[in-house]
Amino acid sequence: MTAPFDAVELIRTKRDGGRWGPAEVAWLIQAYTDGTIAEEQMSALAMAVFFRGLDAEELGGWTRAMIDSGERLDFSRLSRPTADKHSTGGVGDKITLPLVPLVAACGVAVPQLSGRGLGHTGGTLDKLEAIPGWRAALSTQEMLDQLETVGGVICAAGSGLAPADKKLYALRDVTGTVESIPLIASSIMSKKIAEGTGALVLDVKVGSGAFMKQLADARTLATTMVALGRGAGLPTVALLTDMSTPLGLTAGNGLEVAESVEVLSGGGPADVVALTLALAREMLSAAGRGDVDPEPVLASGRAMDVWRAMVGAQGGNPDAALPQARETEVVAAEADGWLAELDAMAVGVAAWRLGAGRARKEDPVQAAAGVTLGAKPGDRVRKGQPLIRLHTDTPERFARAREALVGAVRVTADPPPERPPLVIERIG
Amino acid sequence: MTAPFDAVELIRTKRDGGRWGPAEVAWLIQAYTDGTIAEEQMSALAMAVFFRGLDAEELGGWTRAMIDSGERLDFSRLSRPTADKHSTGGVGDKITLPLVPLVAACGVAVPQLSGRGLGHTGGTLDKLEAIPGWRAALSTQEMLDQLETVGGVICAAGSGLAPADKKLYALRDVTGTVESIPLIASSIMSKKIAEGTGALVLDVKVGSGAFMKQLADARTLATTMVALGRGAGLPTVALLTDMSTPLGLTAGNGLEVAESVEVLSGGGPADVVALTLALAREMLSAAGRGDVDPEPVLASGRAMDVWRAMVGAQGGNPDAALPQARETEVVAAEADGWLAELDAMAVGVAAWRLGAGRARKEDPVQAAAGVTLGAKPGDRVRKGQPLIRLHTDTPERFARAREALVGAVRVTADPPPERPPLVIERIG
Repeated sequence: MTAPFDAVELIRTKRDGGRWGPAEVAWLIQAYTDGTIAEEQMSALAMAVFFRGLDAEELGGWTRAMIDSGERLDFSRLSRPTADKHSTGGVGDKITLPLVPLVAACGVAVPQLSGRGLGHTGGTLDKLEAIPGWRAALSTQEMLDQLETVGGVICAAGSGLAPADKKLYALRDVTGTVESIPLIASSIMSKKIAEGTGALVLDVKVGSGAFMKQLADARTLATTMVALGRGAGLPTVALLTDMSTPLGLTAGNGLEVAESVEVLSGGGPADVVALTLALAREMLSAAGRGDVDPEPVLASGRAMDVWRAMVGAQGGNPDAALPQARETEVVAAEADGWLAELDAMAVGVAAWRLGAGRARKEDPVQAAAGVTLGAKPGDRVRKGQPLIRLHTDTPERFARAREALVGAVRVTADPPPERPPLVIERIG
Repeated sequence: MTAPFDAVELIRTKRDGGRWGPAEVAWLIQAYTDGTIAEEQMSALAMAVFFRGLDAEELGGWTRAMIDSGERLDFSRLSRPTADKHSTGGVGDKITLPLVPLVAACGVAVPQLSGRGLGHTGGTLDKLEAIPGWRAALSTQEMLDQLETVGGVICAAGSGLAPADKKLYALRDVTGTVESIPLIASSIMSKKIAEGTGALVLDVKVGSGAFMKQLADARTLATTMVALGRGAGLPTVALLTDMSTPLGLTAGNGLEVAESVEVLSGGGPADVVALTLALAREMLSAAGRGDVDPEPVLASGRAMDVWRAMVGAQGGNPDAALPQARETEVVAAEADGWLAELDAMAVGVAAWRLGAGRARKEDPVQAAAGVTLGAKPGDRVRKGQPLIRLHTDTPERFARAREALVGAVRVTADPPPERPPLVIERIG
């Protein structure tokens, strides 16, 4: 017995409502990373954390230990400040795509290390891979070069960042221990802190299509992450934003790229534009460039220029046509009236089932599959008007996608009450 | 996906306070046994059960599924009824040794499938193995033959009984999920029901030397096990018995065999005799032979005859001298007065450290190591009188055994209040 602590004793301490000291927390993560603590011990421990939580000191130590399990990037030699954004995931949430070039065009470099999607929310890399030729994998040096020359980069996070989190997340996924606020917060923040960004803006989604269905839970998660970031010396703010209905009019990889390009061209749905600008303002302000207004930069086309340079630098052709689905079908309005509800989760599951998302990490995704919307909640609709268009290369998927949408659309005779604001709350 | 249920969904159901249906419970145990549910999933699930519990129907199904995971013995062709006893484990608890031959001598066969010790409580097989030549492993046919000809058998439980429990117990041991009343109850009862006994008496220990320190917990465990037994058609009763101080005057393998032989010879400590008789009466009554009084049978020497036959049938020589420890040391009373307290846990740990027990399954035990007591709580003592004698073949162990005993002995100037009764409560 050369280990300084006993894994079973530490599990029991948490299980029985006790707290771990700093050396115990640091050892736990290190011992799990090197295999001294077995997977089955960590899963029992994670379940105990689900029930008992982690206090601020434990959580800070846990997050630091996850960061210390791997490498840490350093952007301090760039000629510009850096800022990044993280979204907890929503349906139709393509904001990263117009946001990164917009903030870069405003003079703040954005190192966005991103992931692939699992379940009903898409992954940013899956979306960009709909662009012919675009590649997600960059070396650290390529990323640094692109940040300096172009100002923005969206690429795959290397396996060297917070490997303890990678291992723990895979375990939590199969053991029913994902839904723990301290574990979610430390997972997100360890990766973002290790990534080396100079400032961080969190977009914490709340509503049916989000991981957090309740405002109170979303607020707790946001507050916890903001505290973790600041505790690590990283200026961090969070916006709680509505995810009761999809963002914009598209959910699906290529479809969302096309909508993002519309936004960069000065058009696009109002909610996507508004959230892109709100998050850009927060990032600029957190990076010390609150004096720059992103709205005229978007209108000027300079963000589009950065987008084209970003796509090109990673092998993509910004002028190439995006793939189109072989088949489409329409869900039409069943009555005249007002679209009172269009449920985000249902639309997300429909897009997923059409082929836009994956059920397992190994699954491929279809670049052209997904959903486009003919109306947004609050819009007037006519009987027979297409409300939802389903896109897929594999038409046998239509039936199950339609099933997901049962009850998702509500049309009322009277105008519905006003929608909640898109940005519900700011924390920071 | 051919599995009828999803392991992660079932973990979440329990985690969030829901309950499993009968088919879900049966699948869980079967899928864990065949490896469909991974160890790390079962450990998270066990931790969720620790926090959320199992209701009566879930627990009944869980226990049945553990029984169904292996073979089930059948004693219905014996010429006598059968009864068995299970103790939750205590310090100096050698009751099985005189009890089995006594009940057999009263006309009820006793198929005692037993285990080895781990930690501060000894295992019945470890004790019997102090007898030169005695062997624990019997085939099922040898066991049935011995039950018919001798009437009693104490042997190792084959690996075919409740293999799911064996697998789950090993997992719980390393994941901090041992201390869950439904999991403890189903572990004990699945083995005892699979063993095929016709009646069962549970000796649920309560106090410092027992697994259950609090009366309320011991009562809950006993009530749960009695209900499980009866639900499975097995007449079951439980006695809650005191384990705040060791049973008898010995703790250690050969030392406890010697004390058991004293009891079978008509002598022995009053508490060991009293508990042996109380449990014998319960076993006889549960097996439908409540008309037989075990006290005169013990006095007659017929129980001793059965003991000698049992030991001989398993290769042991009942007349062989038991091993004696190479070294002994004494802990003496530090003042005149009354022995008010002699802590069971401390004595158990001391015996364990002297070599009577094991810390890991692979460790050997010493046949002669252990502790003998010179006085029991309530006795008058004189300064310098030997209170505890430590026995070991490896004298370097004395120091750590003495450490365990610090604070374990309390001598008072005035007579202490009366002890709690040995049998605290009967449940059934």
